[in-house]
Amino acid sequence: MNTRKITCALAIMALLSVSLNVNAQRRNRIVSPEINENNTVTFRLYAPDVSSVRLYGSWMQGFGTQVDMIKPDTVWTYTTEVLAPELYNYAFYVDGAKVLDPSNVRMVRDGSRYESMLIVPGDKSDTYEVHDVPHGTLSKVWYPSPSLEKNRRMYVYTPPGYEDGTGKYPVFYLLHGAGGDEDAWTTLGRTPYILDNLIAAGKAKPMIVVMTNGNAWSAAAPGEEPVREDENPPDFSRMAGGGFEKSVVEDVIPFIEKHYRTLTDKDNRAIAGLSMGGMHTQTITNTNPGKFSYIGVMSMGLMNNPRWGDYNEEEHKKQIKVLEDSGVKLYFIGCGKDDFLFESVTNLRKFYDDLGFKYEYMETPGGHTWANWRIYLNELAPKLFK
Amino acid sequence: MNTRKITCALAIMALLSVSLNVNAQRRNRIVSPEINENNTVTFRLYAPDVSSVRLYGSWMQGFGTQVDMIKPDTVWTYTTEVLAPELYNYAFYVDGAKVLDPSNVRMVRDGSRYESMLIVPGDKSDTYEVHDVPHGTLSKVWYPSPSLEKNRRMYVYTPPGYEDGTGKYPVFYLLHGAGGDEDAWTTLGRTPYILDNLIAAGKAKPMIVVMTNGNAWSAAAPGEEPVREDENPPDFSRMAGGGFEKSVVEDVIPFIEKHYRTLTDKDNRAIAGLSMGGMHTQTITNTNPGKFSYIGVMSMGLMNNPRWGDYNEEEHKKQIKVLEDSGVKLYFIGCGKDDFLFESVTNLRKFYDDLGFKYEYMETPGGHTWANWRIYLNELAPKLFK
Repeated sequence: MNTRKITCALAIMALLSVSLNVNAQRRNRIVSPEINENNTVTFRLYAPDVSSVRLYGSWMQGFGTQVDMIKPDTVWTYTTEVLAPELYNYAFYVDGAKVLDPSNVRMVRDGSRYESMLIVPGDKSDTYEVHDVPHGTLSKVWYPSPSLEKNRRMYVYTPPGYEDGTGKYPVFYLLHGAGGDEDAWTTLGRTPYILDNLIAAGKAKPMIVVMTNGNAWSAAAPGEEPVREDENPPDFSRMAGGGFEKSVVEDVIPFIEKHYRTLTDKDNRAIAGLSMGGMHTQTITNTNPGKFSYIGVMSMGLMNNPRWGDYNEEEHKKQIKVLEDSGVKLYFIGCGKDDFLFESVTNLRKFYDDLGFKYEYMETPGGHTWANWRIYLNELAPKLFK
Repeated sequence: MNTRKITCALAIMALLSVSLNVNAQRRNRIVSPEINENNTVTFRLYAPDVSSVRLYGSWMQGFGTQVDMIKPDTVWTYTTEVLAPELYNYAFYVDGAKVLDPSNVRMVRDGSRYESMLIVPGDKSDTYEVHDVPHGTLSKVWYPSPSLEKNRRMYVYTPPGYEDGTGKYPVFYLLHGAGGDEDAWTTLGRTPYILDNLIAAGKAKPMIVVMTNGNAWSAAAPGEEPVREDENPPDFSRMAGGGFEKSVVEDVIPFIEKHYRTLTDKDNRAIAGLSMGGMHTQTITNTNPGKFSYIGVMSMGLMNNPRWGDYNEEEHKKQIKVLEDSGVKLYFIGCGKDDFLFESVTNLRKFYDDLGFKYEYMETPGGHTWANWRIYLNELAPKLFK
């Protein structure tokens, strides 16, 4: 590297600095979040002209909890208690208005909400972090869905080595919940990094992971959907109406098996979903016995309340018997103790117990949260295709 | 779709609504941005407890310009003048603190800064929008870079039809500027959608587009880089130090040509870059004559100021002569009239004019902005490989 190039580079930087505004320069001196040695975390926000700043963090207990930040000088500050190793979302509320942490580039989107993100390091959060291991490829793929009469988008993870080899791989179909989209298992679920890390550690088999958009009325995540002349509001009556479930079997799986090097027997096909996606998973697997040997239902149970419609227990029993006979290698159920669907999960387990249908059950602290769904993915992925 | 499934879906929604907070419910009634029929735009923010809200928008003239929003009741409001069809960034400043528009899911990241985004529709902005046309695949790909001694990430766009065919494609290497990363040409540059739309309209040939990370010291965009024990601050002395430029030729191109179905003669290879990437493009093409028949330099000119190092005009002249003899089909230069590098671009043009080296020049209003770089991409892509 010669002198000219270095000085030229510095000259470009000098020129570019013209376009940085004063706030950005102030921000550059502010470290936030700072993860301290004892795993407390210090948050800081430069906002000299506001009268209050409050902090929301996903580690806080209780719905809607926020804490006051204090301003010893010009920078609002708050230090947490010791936090367990985990991925957390947080945001500042400046005089009540939600603000991302301008000092932190890490951010997650949950539906239409953006929040800042940090990972407190430790054993439990280690698989969520980007490590210097071989990485798979994450692709945003559009595919035709005749069932839903549109072109739709999904994310496809191919494991490290896929592009360099000729071998065929098992496929894991991973479904999101209500309010989510095809991006959710990547951004909030950290699926590509969890798989990279589990595969690198020899804990999970290399596999393709397919993350669909479970909203039957839409083509892609908000903002990524083709513009239309007419308005296209969400049609929640189609949430679990059977259209998306049909499209997984008739559109998605054939597309994946045509375009990727896949193993296509049931022992090399897995499906799991959370909440609404757990409902989708049940519908798909109950009505397609022999399609998947590995099934995961997260934070979703038995929807048999008579108020909700014409649930037919006898039909359900028959379905599960046929499913069992088709040869299920693993039926995984995960639920948080504080999940608002905990009772429905208890009912599903009792229903399976009464039938003698075997499943693995994982119960965790906490509620209907991505913290739990990441834990279930981390638990489930190593059990697949073995 | 049976009654049970519909009512079940509604039940799930009812349960989920528990987890939506009150602010979110208030926000749901607020439309922002609203693009009015005459292409004025109305912005709204619910923030009853703050004393001032100002709006910044990329359509505003003058550095650091903001306008006051007004609060007729509980919602802060501002309506712009008529805006030209274009993609715009904007943000609210709540008592001085920067806030994304909570009613708008569209958002862009520029380095570590996030801003809300909208597209005012019209002919000029039509290629930036997501339309219901065949879409290419966008992949986040990790590749080994022996030159830079790390695994690094790039984005690869494969055009519609690539996965269904067996044909080979030309490749366009597209380089970002200082402060950017491998995500910039996608998020700010709208490259996948511009290519989808140009290809669908028959204006551009189907091509593979490779968007690298031009920061030689890093592996991937901020937040996507492997964690390290030691700190890994940006090393700006490596901005145009030759390392990245070498890695494009020695690492990136061979990887792409090995892993994708590519046409590998120079007439099927193009390269372009903006600002720092325009410098990279010049260095790469000046020192690798016969490698690319199509070359684009955006918002970057001649860096021959003696203060910046040992520029050798004679050597440069020789390089351009050899480059010309190697057979360049298109050398495109784009610059904004108000670009702070306008003079350097004028000097580069004069240098080429004096040598009789032919180029196409596009001059636009405005400065060193993504608005201009999108225009140049939109102009350049249809000229490639023809």
